[in-house]
Amino acid sequence: MEVERFAVSKRRSDMVRYNHHLYIGGQVAEDLAGDIQAQTLEVLLGIEQLLLSAGSSRERVLSVRILLADREDYAGLNRIWDEFFPAGHAPTRACTLAQLIDPGWRVEMIVVAACD
Amino acid sequence: MEVERFAVSKRRSDMVRYNHHLYIGGQVAEDLAGDIQAQTLEVLLGIEQLLLSAGSSRERVLSVRILLADREDYAGLNRIWDEFFPAGHAPTRACTLAQLIDPGWRVEMIVVAACD
Amino acid sequence: MEVERFAVSKRRSDMVRYNHHLYIGGQVAEDLAGDIQAQTLEVLLGIEQLLLSAGSSRERVLSVRILLADREDYAGLNRIWDEFFPAGHAPTRACTLAQLIDPGWRVEMIVVAACD
Repeated sequence: MEVERFAVSKRRSDMVRYNHHLYIGGQVAEDLAGDIQAQTLEVLLGIEQLLLSAGSSRERVLSVRILLADREDYAGLNRIWDEFFPAGHAPTRACTLAQLIDPGWRVEMIVVAACD
Repeated sequence: MEVERFAVSKRRSDMVRYNHHLYIGGQVAEDLAGDIQAQTLEVLLGIEQLLLSAGSSRERVLSVRILLADREDYAGLNRIWDEFFPAGHAPTRACTLAQLIDPGWRVEMIVVAACD
Repeated sequence: MEVERFAVSKRRSDMVRYNHHLYIGGQVAEDLAGDIQAQTLEVLLGIEQLLLSAGSSRERVLSVRILLADREDYAGLNRIWDEFFPAGHAPTRACTLAQLIDPGWRVEMIVVAACD
């Protein structure tokens, strides 16, 4: 069974496919001017692009680990999140607070998804 | 290979079955009056109920991520944990401190387990 | 499909093999006298030993969750990390700050890897 890596740099792969699983490393927003809703949407759409590039989709996400920089952002995160996954397809998730590496990041997500 | 979701709400599934794996999202206590031992036991028994509902069991847990709100609770967490898994069946684990979303939660656990 | 556990104690297994995956629990340095570079190298070499004991290798790591105690250590972590994985084989990773259980630990890593 082969390990297939996507968007590989010296430091990390953005995604790895293995044994019908996709592993996506910590995803953050590039546009740091936005509020939590803008950053959440950018992160989720970036994840979707990765999933689509490997033949998966937002309907097939298994688990998401959400790391939130500021408790005040919890409602805004959920406002976007709750609209993103089609009914009946919400993944498992765990959301805690954490200090992220770049203080401009408000949210970071780590994903495991299904693929063929 | 199908993705099967358990206890699905708009926001999250409590558990997902895929390719002989079970993914369980962040599990916390509902009874916030208890100390760390009571919360740990409630969380572990809740996880066991999820596992049993999918034909798995506490003997088949692969990994547990433990997020602990207060360093003082580490000994109490372990007092319950060390009695929970049958000899020879302890999962891998990683326990760090973290601020949890509800300040009443003392511990949160994320699980991956095996199932048929 | 069988669950095979490595280095099992009452509290945890260091590694579990299941369905062509290896799950490695939180790995930390034993030598706490060293700086971040020494601790990072010890942790990565310890992970490699576990991988080799199950017929995997540093070329087959799928994801690494890095928990860093101190933001000042980020550059030192990467100095070692960036030399560790052979070109084209970097895993997915997510690195955030976290308070670790032992204040002497500067970094902790959780790993999922491929194996036959």
